[in-house]
Amino acid sequence: MRECFELQDTDAGGRLGELTVPRAGVTVETPALLPVINPNLDTISPRRLADEFGAEILITNSYIIYNTDDVRERALSEGLHDMFDFPGAIMTDSGSFQLSEYGEITVTTEEILQFQADIGSDIGTPVDIPTPPDVSRERAAEELETTKDRLEIADGVDVGDMLINAPVQGSTHPDLREAAARHADSTGLDVFPVGAVVPLMNDYRYDDMIDVVAAAKRGLGADAPVHLFGAGHPMMFALAVAMGCDLFDSAAYALYARDDRYLTVRGTQHLEDIEYFPCSCPVCSTHEPADVRALPDQQREETLAAHNLHVTFGEIRRIKQAIRAGNLLELVEQRARAHPTMLDGYRTLLDHADQLEASDPVSKGAFFYTSHESARRPEVLRHRRRLERLSVPDSLFLTEGDGDGPAEYDDSWRVKPPFGPFPRALSKSYPLTAEVPTRVDRGALEAAAAGITRLVESNPDSEFGVGHLDWPAGALEALPDSVETIDLTESHRS
Amino acid sequence: MRECFELQDTDAGGRLGELTVPRAGVTVETPALLPVINPNLDTISPRRLADEFGAEILITNSYIIYNTDDVRERALSEGLHDMFDFPGAIMTDSGSFQLSEYGEITVTTEEILQFQADIGSDIGTPVDIPTPPDVSRERAAEELETTKDRLEIADGVDVGDMLINAPVQGSTHPDLREAAARHADSTGLDVFPVGAVVPLMNDYRYDDMIDVVAAAKRGLGADAPVHLFGAGHPMMFALAVAMGCDLFDSAAYALYARDDRYLTVRGTQHLEDIEYFPCSCPVCSTHEPADVRALPDQQREETLAAHNLHVTFGEIRRIKQAIRAGNLLELVEQRARAHPTMLDGYRTLLDHADQLEASDPVSKGAFFYTSHESARRPEVLRHRRRLERLSVPDSLFLTEGDGDGPAEYDDSWRVKPPFGPFPRALSKSYPLTAEVPTRVDRGALEAAAAGITRLVESNPDSEFGVGHLDWPAGALEALPDSVETIDLTESHRS
Ligand SMILES: [Mg+2]
Ligand SMILES: [Mg+2]
Ligand SMILES: [Zn+2]
Ligand SMILES: [Zn+2]
Repeated sequence: MRECFELQDTDAGGRLGELTVPRAGVTVETPALLPVINPNLDTISPRRLADEFGAEILITNSYIIYNTDDVRERALSEGLHDMFDFPGAIMTDSGSFQLSEYGEITVTTEEILQFQADIGSDIGTPVDIPTPPDVSRERAAEELETTKDRLEIADGVDVGDMLINAPVQGSTHPDLREAAARHADSTGLDVFPVGAVVPLMNDYRYDDMIDVVAAAKRGLGADAPVHLFGAGHPMMFALAVAMGCDLFDSAAYALYARDDRYLTVRGTQHLEDIEYFPCSCPVCSTHEPADVRALPDQQREETLAAHNLHVTFGEIRRIKQAIRAGNLLELVEQRARAHPTMLDGYRTLLDHADQLEASDPVSKGAFFYTSHESARRPEVLRHRRRLERLSVPDSLFLTEGDGDGPAEYDDSWRVKPPFGPFPRALSKSYPLTAEVPTRVDRGALEAAAAGITRLVESNPDSEFGVGHLDWPAGALEALPDSVETIDLTESHRS
Repeated sequence: MRECFELQDTDAGGRLGELTVPRAGVTVETPALLPVINPNLDTISPRRLADEFGAEILITNSYIIYNTDDVRERALSEGLHDMFDFPGAIMTDSGSFQLSEYGEITVTTEEILQFQADIGSDIGTPVDIPTPPDVSRERAAEELETTKDRLEIADGVDVGDMLINAPVQGSTHPDLREAAARHADSTGLDVFPVGAVVPLMNDYRYDDMIDVVAAAKRGLGADAPVHLFGAGHPMMFALAVAMGCDLFDSAAYALYARDDRYLTVRGTQHLEDIEYFPCSCPVCSTHEPADVRALPDQQREETLAAHNLHVTFGEIRRIKQAIRAGNLLELVEQRARAHPTMLDGYRTLLDHADQLEASDPVSKGAFFYTSHESARRPEVLRHRRRLERLSVPDSLFLTEGDGDGPAEYDDSWRVKPPFGPFPRALSKSYPLTAEVPTRVDRGALEAAAAGITRLVESNPDSEFGVGHLDWPAGALEALPDSVETIDLTESHRS
């Protein structure tokens, strides 16, 4: 068991956890948001991030510090904690991105980690190769070998109790991401950033982002804290958490503020387009948009950054509460409607329902069916699998109605879309207590039909009948031919 | 044109408007939330409601005032505005609900309106009969006659420049609601509460609520301000606004706070179940749940009431901004995932797409396809209708591909789910600029098929071909038999 990370609760692939950062002497609750601090610019001071917004951890770039003489000297003499006046944990990035964009690496992995340790970083990062999406398998595999070498070197460096990031690369090749994750997990390193996803975010490729994270998660143990590196828009936090991400970093709060952009969980808006602040944060409940527009540049930037942070940290709390209450996927259902590409992301998340099912609790508060997509949730899949293991009599009537059905059947079970059939004794157990809409959709009916099919195929020697309420042809056609079907609509109404 | 209400903008059935309240000398922006003030209890003072939360109008109960000796005397001598120290508009309810529950009416319509005028109400209410849902048509019709009589009496009363509410009753009988609305609209009365919907809200019958509002709206002119009377949960504001409601009143913010209940746009939570405040309001960004739980009763109630108000007014601002930006239905898409009954409500709203289409702007910012339900939006319906009016050549190829299709066709049009076909010249015009997910669903495909069918049936003398990308059998079967179909998947990929 990795000592620095302890899971407190799970929901789908999402986790509430505690990341212990020994060098800082603090424990960070996850999911956590790491505000990015640019050592040369200071929109909102780190002290204010801690005191006013509750930031427990932040991230800054060791490459920028290394390359700015006066900052480097201050960092080396005072240490990052005093220099920033920040009481929580501080993670440093190695600047892999800058190095890969702008220059050659002139320092060794040992040197760069030692420098991070020297300036007082609590979690350091080796220089990996951030292979972008969509490159050839050859290039991704080759660059991954370099990243692996660096991780192995990092694993051998003695930097005291500083934790070390083990970035997971592999571009958009799922097998490479999975192998990279398995390798990273096998080292003694501590935190696992899923790297080079920023280009996917920039192009709204939330479906591909989910596939990348899913692949990385398959290679990592449940005790591995996962950082979605460079992803800071609150719109997609819930989705990424549901796939198993624990840490996010946001430069967006400050960068967007500089451009008069206003973050919301429904997307980004420009200040000039806002007539009413769609938010109840301390900024938006005390300012009018026109007043903020009239502020001098620096004050306007700071005001917008404060709103952006309130929204961002509010969403992190909302996600934590959702995991605790067991309704994270209900939150994702809503966030998936923020943009068509978020819907693609959610549909892709559900492609991995099988993987999510492994960590999803057997019982939660309530399952809410709130879209066609709900029919593909891991709980539905789990129930369908469970059907294979239930014993059935020689003949069984499966019915949406309240009655027992025709007398020739030995017994009757209930059918509830999207789950399908189950013995009545299970009616009160999760997820069969689900709240479902009155207006049943085809997604739910076809999932129920798949459940019936699973039960019938698992019990080839039993006879089955199905009593349904006005199912359309498509759902009925999905049932095995051997099943007798009866439309109960008339008798049910009377 | 009704002088007191002016529309500024519309989106689906939702409206931004200005309600001029002459007696208060103020203009109230709608959609508006009227906090309910109990003259005997004071969780948050009216002055604080105005200054801290931006309340422009509140509502109080004239029956309680009338029946509480000292309050009545103060109200008569000082007037409500001074008594409450409230600078905005004040609406008074007549106490129809209390009267119908607890007693006989001992005063006339004239007297009760005169009393409201005497205490300084800006918008008064006659005593109507709040017929509950699900009663027989006979009872609903009979009680409606009494309500109509009262409205006609109210119309003749001289109460200076006090506006008067004209409640619309009719239980769950759409034809009676519509007739009631038409009658109310024909009087000289000013504001139109849709009455007796609280039992529907209490039972989460958002589908029936929408049907009731839709019926009332059919009987009312566009210049009629509509009040969804007794509906104060922010979860359903966007849905109700999209159907055409302009005013809401909230007793919930205070009543719920008294029971340690915490409002969110995703539903209600109990304080004891909250480990992380899922909110960024001034209360939640400065308090921990455990600290609020530890507060003395009165302070805890006030703290929760403040949160409840922040969420409620924040949602009103979000809705106003959505109407301005033209993405109200995108907001409803998200709110519809708060609870399965809200999904029922949204699906019912889309049953009235035809009615919504009448007020929906021809052009808006962007159409986001974010669920199967999006395929039933009024914009899709409008495009389908427009197809009847477009002229087509003798033979026309309708294609999801980029090319022109087979040479034997005179021309080719584009096909874009969920809209269906259109001449390429329209590609850049709303709603055909829609953002759609990469993963097209059956809702979108079948809507596109319906569009094609409409075009084909409107042009029986033309020949049509359809080039599609891997449509499933269900969508293809929805096309007319006369249409030649070609799957372009292979050629498209190459
Ligand atoms: Mg849990
Ligand atoms: Mg507009
Ligand atoms: Zn804000
Ligand atoms: Zn709050």
